[in-house]
Amino acid sequence: MVAATFVSNLPAPEPAASMAQERARAAFDPAEMHQILEGTPEKAQQILGLYQSLERDPVLAPSFYDYEMSRDENRLQTTRRIARMAQYVEKESPEDFWRRLGLVTAYDPSLGIRIAVNLGLFVNCIKGNGTAAQYKYWCVEKEARHMKQVWGCFGMTELAHGSNAAGVETTATFDEKTDEFVINTPHIGATKWWIGGAAHSATHSSVYARLIVNGKDYGVKTFVVPLRDSQHNLMPGVSIGDIGSKMGREGVDNGWIQFSGVRIPRFFMLQKFCRVERDGTVKMPPLEQLSYISLLEGRVGMAADSYRICARFITIAVRYAVGRRQFKKEEKKKDSDNLETQLLDYPLHQRRLMPYLALTYAAALGTDRLERQHKFVVSSLEEAVNNDDQNGIKRSLGDTKALFVDSAALKSTLTWLAERCLSETRQACGGSGYSAYSGFGQAYADWAVQCTWEGDNSVLGMSAGRSVMKKVADVLTKKSGISHNKVSGQGKTLSIENGNVSKHQLGVSKTNSRAVSSSSPGLFNSDTLSFLDNASSYLTGSYLESDFAPKTVLTALEALIVRVAASALESKDGWDSVSYERVLLSRLRCHQYLLHTLVQVLDRKKTPDLQEPLEKVARLYALTSIVETYAREFIAHGIMSGEASLIVTSKLIPQSCLEVRQQAIPLTDSFQIPDTLLNSAIGTHDGNWYENYFRVVKSHNDARKTKAPYSHELEGFLNRPNLDARERHERGHEAQKKLSG
Amino acid sequence: MVAATFVSNLPAPEPAASMAQERARAAFDPAEMHQILEGTPEKAQQILGLYQSLERDPVLAPSFYDYEMSRDENRLQTTRRIARMAQYVEKESPEDFWRRLGLVTAYDPSLGIRIAVNLGLFVNCIKGNGTAAQYKYWCVEKEARHMKQVWGCFGMTELAHGSNAAGVETTATFDEKTDEFVINTPHIGATKWWIGGAAHSATHSSVYARLIVNGKDYGVKTFVVPLRDSQHNLMPGVSIGDIGSKMGREGVDNGWIQFSGVRIPRFFMLQKFCRVERDGTVKMPPLEQLSYISLLEGRVGMAADSYRICARFITIAVRYAVGRRQFKKEEKKKDSDNLETQLLDYPLHQRRLMPYLALTYAAALGTDRLERQHKFVVSSLEEAVNNDDQNGIKRSLGDTKALFVDSAALKSTLTWLAERCLSETRQACGGSGYSAYSGFGQAYADWAVQCTWEGDNSVLGMSAGRSVMKKVADVLTKKSGISHNKVSGQGKTLSIENGNVSKHQLGVSKTNSRAVSSSSPGLFNSDTLSFLDNASSYLTGSYLESDFAPKTVLTALEALIVRVAASALESKDGWDSVSYERVLLSRLRCHQYLLHTLVQVLDRKKTPDLQEPLEKVARLYALTSIVETYAREFIAHGIMSGEASLIVTSKLIPQSCLEVRQQAIPLTDSFQIPDTLLNSAIGTHDGNWYENYFRVVKSHNDARKTKAPYSHELEGFLNRPNLDARERHERGHEAQKKLSG
Repeated sequence: MVAATFVSNLPAPEPAASMAQERARAAFDPAEMHQILEGTPEKAQQILGLYQSLERDPVLAPSFYDYEMSRDENRLQTTRRIARMAQYVEKESPEDFWRRLGLVTAYDPSLGIRIAVNLGLFVNCIKGNGTAAQYKYWCVEKEARHMKQVWGCFGMTELAHGSNAAGVETTATFDEKTDEFVINTPHIGATKWWIGGAAHSATHSSVYARLIVNGKDYGVKTFVVPLRDSQHNLMPGVSIGDIGSKMGREGVDNGWIQFSGVRIPRFFMLQKFCRVERDGTVKMPPLEQLSYISLLEGRVGMAADSYRICARFITIAVRYAVGRRQFKKEEKKKDSDNLETQLLDYPLHQRRLMPYLALTYAAALGTDRLERQHKFVVSSLEEAVNNDDQNGIKRSLGDTKALFVDSAALKSTLTWLAERCLSETRQACGGSGYSAYSGFGQAYADWAVQCTWEGDNSVLGMSAGRSVMKKVADVLTKKSGISHNKVSGQGKTLSIENGNVSKHQLGVSKTNSRAVSSSSPGLFNSDTLSFLDNASSYLTGSYLESDFAPKTVLTALEALIVRVAASALESKDGWDSVSYERVLLSRLRCHQYLLHTLVQVLDRKKTPDLQEPLEKVARLYALTSIVETYAREFIAHGIMSGEASLIVTSKLIPQSCLEVRQQAIPLTDSFQIPDTLLNSAIGTHDGNWYENYFRVVKSHNDARKTKAPYSHELEGFLNRPNLDARERHERGHEAQKKLSG
Repeated sequence: MVAATFVSNLPAPEPAASMAQERARAAFDPAEMHQILEGTPEKAQQILGLYQSLERDPVLAPSFYDYEMSRDENRLQTTRRIARMAQYVEKESPEDFWRRLGLVTAYDPSLGIRIAVNLGLFVNCIKGNGTAAQYKYWCVEKEARHMKQVWGCFGMTELAHGSNAAGVETTATFDEKTDEFVINTPHIGATKWWIGGAAHSATHSSVYARLIVNGKDYGVKTFVVPLRDSQHNLMPGVSIGDIGSKMGREGVDNGWIQFSGVRIPRFFMLQKFCRVERDGTVKMPPLEQLSYISLLEGRVGMAADSYRICARFITIAVRYAVGRRQFKKEEKKKDSDNLETQLLDYPLHQRRLMPYLALTYAAALGTDRLERQHKFVVSSLEEAVNNDDQNGIKRSLGDTKALFVDSAALKSTLTWLAERCLSETRQACGGSGYSAYSGFGQAYADWAVQCTWEGDNSVLGMSAGRSVMKKVADVLTKKSGISHNKVSGQGKTLSIENGNVSKHQLGVSKTNSRAVSSSSPGLFNSDTLSFLDNASSYLTGSYLESDFAPKTVLTALEALIVRVAASALESKDGWDSVSYERVLLSRLRCHQYLLHTLVQVLDRKKTPDLQEPLEKVARLYALTSIVETYAREFIAHGIMSGEASLIVTSKLIPQSCLEVRQQAIPLTDSFQIPDTLLNSAIGTHDGNWYENYFRVVKSHNDARKTKAPYSHELEGFLNRPNLDARERHERGHEAQKKLSG
């Protein structure tokens, strides 16, 4: 046979075999590790149960079609998924539902945010800023909390006002004659903008507008404004449009809203913190700043989202790097086998991925702690208010301020790092990472906005950093050596003055906040900046010489925070002049939070099998995300020597990367994300990515259609007549002769 | 009137006024600066002419519809634009055409790459690897060079082989009986993958395949294989499919190809460097490595693309930061006006954007130099070959090796930096940066692949860094103090052995390479690593103390390169163990190239008006992209002290940012990109972004459609019956009573 001679038929690559070998080397049980990552066995079990439910759900389960939808298709599918989620919200516990929402968000962030805006921002805004009666009316009786009848959007941002929420210009003018507020958009800049759910879904909006009574501006308050009637038609005076195409999250119907003299009854103003009486008298109790507390939950959630998105994509990139081989390492070149080297065996590839794997572990533990801290703060504030316990209330308010700082630092730092992680893991998958079916492209486009919304990262970072500086200033000037109540935020961040508060003012009702484990606060001390209490002892001395264990790095990091803050405090040019240092401090503070948590988990030594891998991961996290990333600062502030930093870079980090690489597959298996929810053609558990990927490509692109729909256009220009003919020979000799004659 | 009392009608923001004020402060003429940025007045004029032509062209001009197309629409529009470009390629000079293509690529990279694959890779592959007769046949007679009749794709990458092109497994087996090659895909891993233009457009492919003659494997050679006949139907034995959705560049019909015993005549092998005789004798002349020279042009082009994409988006972000106001700076809080502070007046915002503006200037000058270097190397090699000048050939080959290093370092470093620039400039525009109409989303998605293709950045970086290390090793060991011929690449990078070469072997014909100005090489010395010739003098001493002028930084940077290389050379564990340091060296080398160019331009002092702004930009570039970015390395290697680095960060950089900020609008106006080609609703020249943006949103999203097409789905779940009813009351008391009875 001729074919036998000239047609090659060599063995195909076998990435699944490499994957099996990696698993055979596992030194621990990923299911056990999963319990550590998620904080408790109960939470881990809850997540596995929800994963199973989501994987099987015909509507909620993702697919590769998710990567190929038009905007309209995306909106439709998201709406159907919302309808499906609405069934669960009626039946499962708030904890299970919010956890489900968090898991769904990792693969369908459009779905996640559409629900989170309604239940997290709109409903929380009513709960936080409204009276108990107002909450009961709209959220319970009108069923908003069950995604039924009422669908709310959050009308805060305006075209000209995003970060500066206190500067919005929509007006709510009291008309004493009719006992109504008139909601009005004064000019284009005050158009409500980016409002998620406004374009098509929302029946109501919580509107941030300036309260004007008898010509006096009382500042920004919140109002419930109906947008659409029960036939889903726009209310009169309400102008709404779609703000159109976006970088990502096309499943979300973000809209713009303009109000033209829209009248609402006086009691549609959310009046927990501010009341307008029938005669126009305005009463403003203290603690109004707490009205921004509803934003906190979103920030805590976005920090946790950062963990889940990193877990998803580091899993994919590590699996790919096990199955993918390219070139042959020098020392292997004389080996007889024909196998090229696995990407993950190259030192540079380890150095690109392993630090993100370690960071993901730190983010898992740190954001679990943040969720518990949030749960604790919210519930103890509620409890104190319910018991009219003034000391408890004061304590809780202090804790709330600390949570503002922590959530701002973690939200901004972790969403930034996740953005980098998505870019680096994608690049580490080479061309395959650019295929839509790998999942990276959509995930990046959807993710990018996390750095901007619900507190622009730079603004949040400046705010958190300023609090750190103030705390250091307090401690160093001995004005206060212990009280965290001196740490106050700036701008839109909470700045709480002490004062008695009543149960009425805080209008506590049962929370349906994002699910957090029901365990005791456990690891954390709610005064999370207490490590700065002995700041002065950190002002001198070097900490990083030959010992780079996580605990040592933690101390060094705390010293660095003190020194950066102290040095910035010397500036005479005001806060703006040290904004760079403030953002730096916010990042450092985030890492202190994460590393502190990691160190505490290590100290518990709960599971002997897991101790060694966890220690290796912690070491790598500390070496890369902290010591190397901030090496310049450590050196310049005298905490580490330049020589030591060279050893870290050239010796310790490569060693540490290699150690983590040995268990990279079990370490990523520990995230326990099922294939269906990873939704990546190149990241399946079996490692058989060539076959999987090609199958997805073929099933989504019918190869039987050998010509494109636009093929005639192609053929048209390829087979066009010659230029001379197309120019009617007007430029030819013949024409020249005739024309020159 | 009631309306007069309760309806607010305040003045809208006036960003255009702010823009006008900025322009009134201009200290120089942007049109003059444009000539510096583009290298020569002639090139600047060429670009302005092409901009005008593109802005007006009904097919080639971009629009906001470009951001909302489905994959099919995108492919169709791209094809129509190709047809339009095909008219220009017939009529304008190659220099104008390639410059036009470069400018088009900055706003329609799908269009750019579809043409570049055909004319840049396919045609260049034939020119570079084929004989003059082969070039003449396919490119001239069959009109491929005019995008007519023949449309070529570049069949190098396989599913299992990207970076390691020498490892591709497609076979080309010689059948002596029929005097043919049999092209075959042995297994899934050898499927040609990502092949741009293959899915629908290409009539031919240059195929990289292993030459097998009488059972012997002669390594990878190139073959011209017809894919589609003149009816555009697939040839027998050729299987092709679309590889489907991608992160970006959806306008490109990337495809996969499998060959099943496809037969081509013997003379379809490109045989400049390798011939198979009628009897199966294989002749392999020297210099085969030059067959990869065709990839160089793409890398040079991608470095230049980096400049153009950064110019486009830094222009948008700076204009936005002038018109956008948010909060009020502390020192302004007592001012009587109601104006908030322009974003660009915040030190942090300056620090986010101004370094990228300075980098863009450095990239403009540096990539202009690289283009001229490429032009010079190609033309002097051609000239030497034409004159059979053996010394000239040897010299040119050395220059070619230097160009391999330079283009690898600049392509990888600049495409990475552009990726960061796109992310940072987008974030600096807040929510507006996330709107599709700002342009960032599409640009990022399209850009990302530049870090991966035509030499993965990490692989290129390792290669360039290795060359730097070898040069330093040569100099330090005194094996060679001067010859750049000792610098040899690795892997797929050029490694040329000296040897006589004939005109025949190099088969020179007139180039249609990417346009470069026709001026003399001017600024550059083609042995671009000669700054390492006195490496040993750089081994000791500190360079950055109180003087941070660009020239001083240049010297310090050169010293750093020597020390990093010398330190990496001490490793005993082989090249892989220092891959991190190699990539670092590649980045440093890129910056040395850029800063060296800047310093030379400054030294010329050609235009007095421009001298001061250029000096400020150069200073900021040196301080941020070099001194601060590599501060740890400078300190650890003893070139700068930690204290000095703190002064750089806290004093010099803020000062320098502020200086550049003062002229930020004229500095971005100097890129001279017309509004139509910026294609951003928030970046227009007049600064009137609120109105512009809202107009685009309204015109692209018909607000008269107040309900979504899927509104019934929304209304369906919002108005669903109660749970009890939906569950047929089966869980109610009634049922319980009946069932428990």
